[in-house]
Amino acid sequence: MLTKAELQRLRSLREKKTREELGFFVLEGEKVVAELLAAKFSFSEIYATPAWPGAKTHAITVEEMARASHFPTPSSVLAVGRIVRTALAPGALDRGLTLALDGVQDAGNVGTLIRIADWFAFDRVVLSPDCADLFHQKTINASMGSFVRMTAHTAELARALKKTSAPILGCDLTGDDVHALPPLRDAVVVIGSEGRGLSPAVAARVTRRVTIPKFGGAESLNAATAAAIVCDNLRRAQARV
Amino acid sequence: MLTKAELQRLRSLREKKTREELGFFVLEGEKVVAELLAAKFSFSEIYATPAWPGAKTHAITVEEMARASHFPTPSSVLAVGRIVRTALAPGALDRGLTLALDGVQDAGNVGTLIRIADWFAFDRVVLSPDCADLFHQKTINASMGSFVRMTAHTAELARALKKTSAPILGCDLTGDDVHALPPLRDAVVVIGSEGRGLSPAVAARVTRRVTIPKFGGAESLNAATAAAIVCDNLRRAQARV
Repeated sequence: MLTKAELQRLRSLREKKTREELGFFVLEGEKVVAELLAAKFSFSEIYATPAWPGAKTHAITVEEMARASHFPTPSSVLAVGRIVRTALAPGALDRGLTLALDGVQDAGNVGTLIRIADWFAFDRVVLSPDCADLFHQKTINASMGSFVRMTAHTAELARALKKTSAPILGCDLTGDDVHALPPLRDAVVVIGSEGRGLSPAVAARVTRRVTIPKFGGAESLNAATAAAIVCDNLRRAQARV
Repeated sequence: MLTKAELQRLRSLREKKTREELGFFVLEGEKVVAELLAAKFSFSEIYATPAWPGAKTHAITVEEMARASHFPTPSSVLAVGRIVRTALAPGALDRGLTLALDGVQDAGNVGTLIRIADWFAFDRVVLSPDCADLFHQKTINASMGSFVRMTAHTAELARALKKTSAPILGCDLTGDDVHALPPLRDAVVVIGSEGRGLSPAVAARVTRRVTIPKFGGAESLNAATAAAIVCDNLRRAQARV
């Protein structure tokens, strides 16, 4: 049973503005909800039809799900989670490995980047305020369970980078060969937007420009691809110590 | 001026089936059309409104473009290209570097993988017949100009792999460390579908299983991310010779 007020709330959480106001996000789909549950995420509500095999807080009908769902083919489950934002502590970037996203616009890319950070056991991800929303369905879909495991902060990137003592790595086409990276225990890897690359304020903070050797004709690699290669080389260099 | 027959043809080329029947594909958007032109792709027709600064074969109005376009916000240009399919020559996989896609379903991923193959100067990309269509707008968008530069074949993958003498590299979680790859002048890198990985028939052809060292909690990397890391390591190992 789904009240009119509940229906309205679930639908309104599709809007970033409402999510921020109410402090909750919605997530649909058996696979992604199961992944978050497996990663020990605690949803505040789980609306589900009889087809959903897992736990639920609200049993609803297929017709009610169709009204609440954002998708043409609704799944059997729609979960609501609380938005928790952790402030970036002063000095946090000085220690360990940080993946910093500067204006990455596509929610799928943000999610994929969080998954990469998780694979390589980065300590945190920092998103500039103009990145795609961390609590968008597409971001969470692409990040898989990494959304739960990784600590993600939103912060004014150029300002946060200004204060850190860790080396700041940025990709461009004329930097040092990424294959020759020295072992770095602490580092920030900055990744720019798909279309424009790094913003000037963030680019000015880069202390080590690295380049992925190119052999063919492509002008660039996409953000997630470049990030993955840099992270792999960073971990490989560390392993040499 | 756009005739009714032209309009119908342009619209119908949005369907894969019609593309195959007629042997043409359509592509919209200033950026991607300009990229293909810069890569010397020769379109058979270019329909454009007065806002398009480049060459055109058919001048049409904004209203006509709105009718022909697939997008809610049409661009100033819609180009038609001939579909050219090159058969995979016997023995082709024995020489050089091949990126082979086994059931990669997402058109954006197929495009990104073609761009990666181009960056690392692979000799060819081979798509299994159940991959997303090479001539889909999203594939071409994601591949950027690499769509023009890379030679892409569609072939029954398991059969083609059976006949090759080149080592066949597949990613899994229990293979040899990708950082310890020997220099390989010739190699086929196989990439599986996003959800299911390699098909059993293709997995059975893999002669060298490689693993990207994992440090954190993510269960996997996505297809394009994994491919990029393997390609970078392959080129890096070659450079040591």
